[in-house]
Amino acid sequence: MDQVRILEVKQSVFANNDAQAQKLRAELKEKGLYLLNLMSSPGSGKTTTLTRLIEALKGTLRIGVMEADIDSDVDAAAIAATGAKAIQLHTGGMCHLDAAMTRQGLEGLSPDELDLVVLENVGNLVCPAEFDTGAVKNAMILSVPEGHDKPLKYPLMFQVCDVVIVNKIDVMPYFDFDMEKCAEYVHMRNPKARIFPICAKTGEGVQAVADWLRQETAQWKENR
Amino acid sequence: MDQVRILEVKQSVFANNDAQAQKLRAELKEKGLYLLNLMSSPGSGKTTTLTRLIEALKGTLRIGVMEADIDSDVDAAAIAATGAKAIQLHTGGMCHLDAAMTRQGLEGLSPDELDLVVLENVGNLVCPAEFDTGAVKNAMILSVPEGHDKPLKYPLMFQVCDVVIVNKIDVMPYFDFDMEKCAEYVHMRNPKARIFPICAKTGEGVQAVADWLRQETAQWKENR
Repeated sequence: MDQVRILEVKQSVFANNDAQAQKLRAELKEKGLYLLNLMSSPGSGKTTTLTRLIEALKGTLRIGVMEADIDSDVDAAAIAATGAKAIQLHTGGMCHLDAAMTRQGLEGLSPDELDLVVLENVGNLVCPAEFDTGAVKNAMILSVPEGHDKPLKYPLMFQVCDVVIVNKIDVMPYFDFDMEKCAEYVHMRNPKARIFPICAKTGEGVQAVADWLRQETAQWKENR
Repeated sequence: MDQVRILEVKQSVFANNDAQAQKLRAELKEKGLYLLNLMSSPGSGKTTTLTRLIEALKGTLRIGVMEADIDSDVDAAAIAATGAKAIQLHTGGMCHLDAAMTRQGLEGLSPDELDLVVLENVGNLVCPAEFDTGAVKNAMILSVPEGHDKPLKYPLMFQVCDVVIVNKIDVMPYFDFDMEKCAEYVHMRNPKARIFPICAKTGEGVQAVADWLRQETAQWKENR
């Protein structure tokens, strides 16, 4: 397995995370570097989805990934194997990333030659939603086995996400998952949220997410 | 649907949660009331498992359930439909329950005629593991679609749990889940953890968990 750099990130010493996040976003804009904050429950398929997206975007975007994890480095190793630039962020037990931690991660990644950086946040539907990381957009993965009622139970997560990727659609026949109800509940929380149904395992639907990311990244650079 | 009482619980004003938890546990011991803290990721099947357990324990144990949720009350309504005593705890965005919140919930449930109370904690593998709720034992549900590597990524959760219920074993053929590796990783975190493979949907394996709970509850009353 590839060796991956591990960085121990520390919580912000700044009281005002929102201001730090705005500052980081302004700097990213100036550089034309797009940062996506990717959130989800544990085990919903963030890393597999990212691996597929990197594959689909190869040759068109230079991608870096920051893998936030409490303790392990299995995910960063999987990403590094795709050839993308990867760094592992250890949160030391913290349940989320804030803007200062994200900045430390970015500095560790030295992203000067990248177009897109994805922050794979800690697997948690509660705390990460409360902290602006400085990302341009927020996305989350909801996997079919978790159930279509999650926007009812974790309102803030769905409220702050611009994109909801519904993963593991290959196992729909084995679960009571209603895609229409899912969309209805997601839009209750955020009427503008885009929904992408995918199967990261087979690659189904991944191209649409890749296209969206390519478009987003291009716009971000243009409006610099 | 049955009407369910909803209680807004507040975070502890006490600095020392551990002391509050010890105090609560001592009071529960005096009363002979067994409290189980049940944790998991979002969508792993806590409520369905509880519904099955209540069914399996009917007539032998008087059961109460505290459903902690950030905002909804769908789970408490599902539990109340089984005939068990149920109360919904709203955490107001909080990602975990502490001992003071658990105490407020217990008081709201008026558990004097109960043998067993289950606290269904907020769906989250990070924060709930950090707070002793005052429960006699901790259990967690890991569902097959989440993957067998979760003990590597969420070490504290598996360290503090006496019991790991592996749910959704009916879909094992559709996921890369290795039960032996799962057991190995769980025991890396807690060598004494008991593992119960179940399928809450079909009821498979639930009887073994019910038997364990019956035994636990009886012992707790005896050693009063």
